[in-house]
Amino acid sequence: MNFDFSPVLSKRAASAGSQWKGYPPYHFVGGNIDEATVPVDELATALDKVFRAEGHSMAKYGMENGSQGYLPLREFIVGNLKRRANMDIEPEEVLLTSGSLQAMDLVNELLLEEGDVVVLESANYGGALTRLKRLGVDYVGIDLDDDGMRMDLLRDALADLKQQGRQAKYIYTIPTIQNPTGTIMSQERRLEMLAIASEFGVPIFEDDCYSDLIWDQKRPPAIHALDTEQRVIYCGTFSKTVAPALRVGYLVAHWNVMKHVLPLKTDAGSGALEQMVLAEYLPKHFDTHVNALMPMLQAKSEAIVEALNEHFGASAEFTVPVGGIYIWVTLPENVDSSILAASAGAEGIAINPGPEWTVYGEQNKNRMRLCFGHPTIDNIREGVAKLADVCHREFGVPLRSGNVDR
Amino acid sequence: MNFDFSPVLSKRAASAGSQWKGYPPYHFVGGNIDEATVPVDELATALDKVFRAEGHSMAKYGMENGSQGYLPLREFIVGNLKRRANMDIEPEEVLLTSGSLQAMDLVNELLLEEGDVVVLESANYGGALTRLKRLGVDYVGIDLDDDGMRMDLLRDALADLKQQGRQAKYIYTIPTIQNPTGTIMSQERRLEMLAIASEFGVPIFEDDCYSDLIWDQKRPPAIHALDTEQRVIYCGTFSKTVAPALRVGYLVAHWNVMKHVLPLKTDAGSGALEQMVLAEYLPKHFDTHVNALMPMLQAKSEAIVEALNEHFGASAEFTVPVGGIYIWVTLPENVDSSILAASAGAEGIAINPGPEWTVYGEQNKNRMRLCFGHPTIDNIREGVAKLADVCHREFGVPLRSGNVDR
Repeated sequence: MNFDFSPVLSKRAASAGSQWKGYPPYHFVGGNIDEATVPVDELATALDKVFRAEGHSMAKYGMENGSQGYLPLREFIVGNLKRRANMDIEPEEVLLTSGSLQAMDLVNELLLEEGDVVVLESANYGGALTRLKRLGVDYVGIDLDDDGMRMDLLRDALADLKQQGRQAKYIYTIPTIQNPTGTIMSQERRLEMLAIASEFGVPIFEDDCYSDLIWDQKRPPAIHALDTEQRVIYCGTFSKTVAPALRVGYLVAHWNVMKHVLPLKTDAGSGALEQMVLAEYLPKHFDTHVNALMPMLQAKSEAIVEALNEHFGASAEFTVPVGGIYIWVTLPENVDSSILAASAGAEGIAINPGPEWTVYGEQNKNRMRLCFGHPTIDNIREGVAKLADVCHREFGVPLRSGNVDR
Repeated sequence: MNFDFSPVLSKRAASAGSQWKGYPPYHFVGGNIDEATVPVDELATALDKVFRAEGHSMAKYGMENGSQGYLPLREFIVGNLKRRANMDIEPEEVLLTSGSLQAMDLVNELLLEEGDVVVLESANYGGALTRLKRLGVDYVGIDLDDDGMRMDLLRDALADLKQQGRQAKYIYTIPTIQNPTGTIMSQERRLEMLAIASEFGVPIFEDDCYSDLIWDQKRPPAIHALDTEQRVIYCGTFSKTVAPALRVGYLVAHWNVMKHVLPLKTDAGSGALEQMVLAEYLPKHFDTHVNALMPMLQAKSEAIVEALNEHFGASAEFTVPVGGIYIWVTLPENVDSSILAASAGAEGIAINPGPEWTVYGEQNKNRMRLCFGHPTIDNIREGVAKLADVCHREFGVPLRSGNVDR
């Protein structure tokens, strides 16, 4: 008789995955990008050159540069963050990670205990919220306006916590192309956040994963760059600009913090080939690649905006993206996006229902996140039309007759 | 004033790493391999071919094959484990991981809660022990003889636990080239372990990381292959045969277990380039590569055995390795290997002191693990001579005068 594992599973292991059935035909979830934009030829050339020259170093877990990762890539990141985000850092303050998700896991391991509390944008990356839940950490959501996280509400929340005798362990923010709202926090507000964090003695964890994806490539300095008190831990990634499956992200922290992060990274190193190929490819090609990528992404953004206008009409409210790969859509009050996601999913359309991407799910029942980075423009148009059909069938909105708008 | 992180660090983050200072000149620790054995040319050719053909798929986190990893590599692993370890598995029972360490972390997350207990070989991989400590999990060490873990002691330990009202969450074993003892568990004993595990209702976690490194490449079937009750979870790696920095390992589990593992792997995928290059390289080259590697490793093993005999004489007792990349050495009773490791470290010789590689440290104070996979034969000879000098200076053994044996 087969051994029954169910009595020995840990509490965390209760849920069960299913076997891979392929991607849905209309794939509006996840940080996937467009296959056509992966710079395969240039990467292949870079890969061949660097691997033939340095492949032998892969005999050692840390290659030639120890546990913080391939030094030439850390040096590129230092220069890139100086040019793009005004940050003044040293290679010793950069840790290469397996995607920015590992950076997030390390920050959580560094700072959090069960029962702690974190303050973050109330509409947020679902993966960040599920990670905190799994750790038994509470979080307080701060609402956003067009300028990002509201500082009056942040101050209130920290003061409330203080009154309860609690101290936020960190402020988590995605200030540049916030996920899912797409907002860019103004420089004034970044400075205000630093002042509030200083007043309440709270560190800031700045997640800048989407900041290279702004149509006009104009952005305020990183909060890390404006910080004069070594209070900010920062992360970024090449997943959204080069390729998600590369799994190369980075954590930036002042050495006094970094020295405590290093012993927590117990994976014996992140992918060496990926680090080597990026170090060879990026210095020559990164700016050209991003410059070419922006109009392509913007065209997709325009396509999804047009499709939403055409098929949902006044039933879909949203801010037109200025960057990123997602749009945050508010539907009429009677729409339950979790039901919509299930019905649409059954017809091959994957979307993120609002409650999974927000702290206060009930208030965001009628919202959804649509990612437009991966599908083609034609697929976006078809998928949004079909989604409108499903939504009409389930909730009576938008008004439609067949595929024709009323 | 700079923000002081020390009051907000988690308990796990107490220790601090130091900046990378380079590798020690005599590097007898870690699973590093010989730079000369990394098959750079063949890997480069494979990489170029597969990446130019399939690089576009890296636009998606899961490439074309979802969260279990690149299917052609999983298919190779299925065939390879059939040929080498008699295992009958399907690609759906293989999860590609970031080194076998991630497989270990996933098994721990799957099965363990704080306060649980695990049973394992009393001399053991230090990383496995530190992981269990960090999780607050107790472990009971089972002594080994030349045939691997002793089954009489395993039965006693499980019975003792039962009497205390406790149940081991799993038996962890490295049956094939055990780390650090280098023993290979006989087939009879493997069957006995399965019978005992069945009697006590305990799963087995079989770590087969070194099993491809046997000089004559003869080995008993994996415990997984002998199991008729779907009780065994298995892991392996290409770190020791191809290159550690590739970070490609694999977890093998029956679907009833695998389905619970998948939701725990929250890293959005392991290195795609590494998976692709191995899938292209291994079917053509793996056997040839391993066949060429064995005499090279065996020559290093012979070199370290000779050097130990020459410089330590009767002061060093050990079993001559039949495979692997390490030798487990017993020194005279008065030697404290932790002090020896510190003194040798100060002179550029890195070794693993016995207490870090054993459950019952006090009984293994005078033991050490020396890894011989990475250094050259000349470096091995020099390093062991220098280590004998340090040991003589600190503990009066082995008897020496300069570099000349007495």
